[in-house]
Amino acid sequence: MFSQRVEGLRPSPIRSILAVIDRPGMVSFAGGLPATDVLPAWSGTVPPELLQYGPSEGDGDLRSVVSENLRALGIDAPVDRVMILSGSQQGIDLTAKLFVDPGTPVAVDDPTYLAALQVLRFYGARFTHLGTGPTDGSGDDARLAYVVPTFANPTGACMTTAERDNLAQTCVRTGAVLFEDDPYRDLVYEPCDRTPVVSRMRGGSWVYQGSFSKTFAPGLRLGFLAASDDLFRHLVVAKQATDLHSSRLSQRIVHDAITAPGWTDRLAHLVGFYRARRDVFEAALRRHFGDLASWETPRGGLFFWLRLRQPVDTRTLLGEAIERGVAFMPGEEFSPGTPALGTMRLNFSHAGADDVERGLATLATLVAGASTSPSSLYASLG
Amino acid sequence: MFSQRVEGLRPSPIRSILAVIDRPGMVSFAGGLPATDVLPAWSGTVPPELLQYGPSEGDGDLRSVVSENLRALGIDAPVDRVMILSGSQQGIDLTAKLFVDPGTPVAVDDPTYLAALQVLRFYGARFTHLGTGPTDGSGDDARLAYVVPTFANPTGACMTTAERDNLAQTCVRTGAVLFEDDPYRDLVYEPCDRTPVVSRMRGGSWVYQGSFSKTFAPGLRLGFLAASDDLFRHLVVAKQATDLHSSRLSQRIVHDAITAPGWTDRLAHLVGFYRARRDVFEAALRRHFGDLASWETPRGGLFFWLRLRQPVDTRTLLGEAIERGVAFMPGEEFSPGTPALGTMRLNFSHAGADDVERGLATLATLVAGASTSPSSLYASLG
Repeated sequence: MFSQRVEGLRPSPIRSILAVIDRPGMVSFAGGLPATDVLPAWSGTVPPELLQYGPSEGDGDLRSVVSENLRALGIDAPVDRVMILSGSQQGIDLTAKLFVDPGTPVAVDDPTYLAALQVLRFYGARFTHLGTGPTDGSGDDARLAYVVPTFANPTGACMTTAERDNLAQTCVRTGAVLFEDDPYRDLVYEPCDRTPVVSRMRGGSWVYQGSFSKTFAPGLRLGFLAASDDLFRHLVVAKQATDLHSSRLSQRIVHDAITAPGWTDRLAHLVGFYRARRDVFEAALRRHFGDLASWETPRGGLFFWLRLRQPVDTRTLLGEAIERGVAFMPGEEFSPGTPALGTMRLNFSHAGADDVERGLATLATLVAGASTSPSSLYASLG
Repeated sequence: MFSQRVEGLRPSPIRSILAVIDRPGMVSFAGGLPATDVLPAWSGTVPPELLQYGPSEGDGDLRSVVSENLRALGIDAPVDRVMILSGSQQGIDLTAKLFVDPGTPVAVDDPTYLAALQVLRFYGARFTHLGTGPTDGSGDDARLAYVVPTFANPTGACMTTAERDNLAQTCVRTGAVLFEDDPYRDLVYEPCDRTPVVSRMRGGSWVYQGSFSKTFAPGLRLGFLAASDDLFRHLVVAKQATDLHSSRLSQRIVHDAITAPGWTDRLAHLVGFYRARRDVFEAALRRHFGDLASWETPRGGLFFWLRLRQPVDTRTLLGEAIERGVAFMPGEEFSPGTPALGTMRLNFSHAGADDVERGLATLATLVAGASTSPSSLYASLG
């Protein structure tokens, strides 16, 4: 099941020893720890122990809260199988590191999150579909399935209950490890089934991860994962080898925020704020792109996914768009293989109403021009 | 030069776009950025922009300070070839990821930093020596050399001027990438040549990294690297794929600390404090280990390296030591191959004088017992 390199993976004896030296009365000559006496007195509000090295799995109080939240979602995630990540991008790197050798078949959606494609490609993944054999017909089936079932990046799609059941059953049946990436679940604007797919698996191997970047703040770089019992300890060792552990100050800040009495209100405010932005964005889309593209209203997440009526390769529009002061993501970048042309991912959470109006007007002009005279456009971009 | 997986390494178009959207007036629909309006109002002292996504290379103000410091050491490290790391462990992972395929010959000291061995093994490194061909005689030479020239972990050794010159020249001559890991350079208790080896290279490829964990605080997980022009951009892309970027709050805190007027005084205080701890430790070592081991007084860093007079495998003593309330690092763990027996790494920075006395007395008793009746000891540890 694992990549070849897992054979070379050994827990660090230092990290193992650090795990026991917190016992009262223990004298440790083991680590390379600074003396607590000379840690900086930075701010009266940061307990000095947060400045010291910490456990690779993350600090206990934050792990406990995450575990409670995941169990409330039906995920089998006791605290000793929860790990704090330096952002959920790290979870993709760790999981790919554990499972992907050159040529390993990995099932992904088309399109899907491009930084996941980047990491999986880096380790040599061969992209395929789940339960149907690889796309090139070479016979074997996916070893790992990377999926964003809830408000997918880039499409915003939310899997139906039947699709979730089917995905869970297929992974159990084929033995594929299910890697469920779930950073957007709290940004929900209309009801839909968001039950984690991993909570529907009976047996099988899985990794589930989430992020504090969307609900709290990305700049602190903090996410989390839980995993099935056969995988978790390997993920911890991979984390040790990658960065020892995540920032303890970030962990404390996030812990205090998500356990504060105002957290639920903050989430509600955030969701209301983003829902309103989505609606403003969609109204502007109708005005500017009504004749140029189709889309579905995303019921959650951060993106509109536009399918242009003309198959323009939107990568060729990006340079000119940026020249004119508007950035977007060409949808073609999100494809694991040869992309269908004429798609754009537009984020609606960041820009205010005036910028949305101006930005979409500019993009629509570009798209309309490209549709009618592709040759001149390509030429102008060199 | 690079590992096979670098062929699959592509910069994320999102990160490339994020690099230009800071321009005034730019409307961005590109990233998945939260609205600045709904970022949490955490503490009046944290500017909201630190809570947003940031550049993979790190924040400009911290990179500038690091660049100045490295250039003052003679390293060719302009600010655009300086990257902030989530701790220097991350630099080892990124560098190994870029260079090590299964079987790639990597030169290391014996003994050397065990978490570097862990990472290099994970990517499949075959350990060898520099400039003398691999230890198994299969013919080719090291592609990468991992070295801690200044107050090495675990031995505390500091390379002489001649050794530094020789290492630099050998890397240039053989084409091996020099990876100089330099976390301890500021913890210097007696004068010695600490000129970075990479500053002595004329041509060649190199990575130099340092850490804020020893001089500031490990819990924030922050380090930095600089690299030669041929390597730097690959390291940035690998960083993107690993965790997008490091905590911006940690970066700001460290920036403010190391540019504050009191920083030089703090370093001087730290060095004096650790020098005194080293001397207390050595006095206790003489009392308890004078007949059992030999060592050299470390001129910097955090460790004593003990060579026992009897070749006891100290890994067999660790369980009993922890039972009796003392942790240490068996020196055998630091070997890339079959270790010489009878070595211990003892950290002197963390424990106070009373704990040092009690801890070393306990360890000496164990070592003396093991030296005289090895069979019973092995049996007792199962």
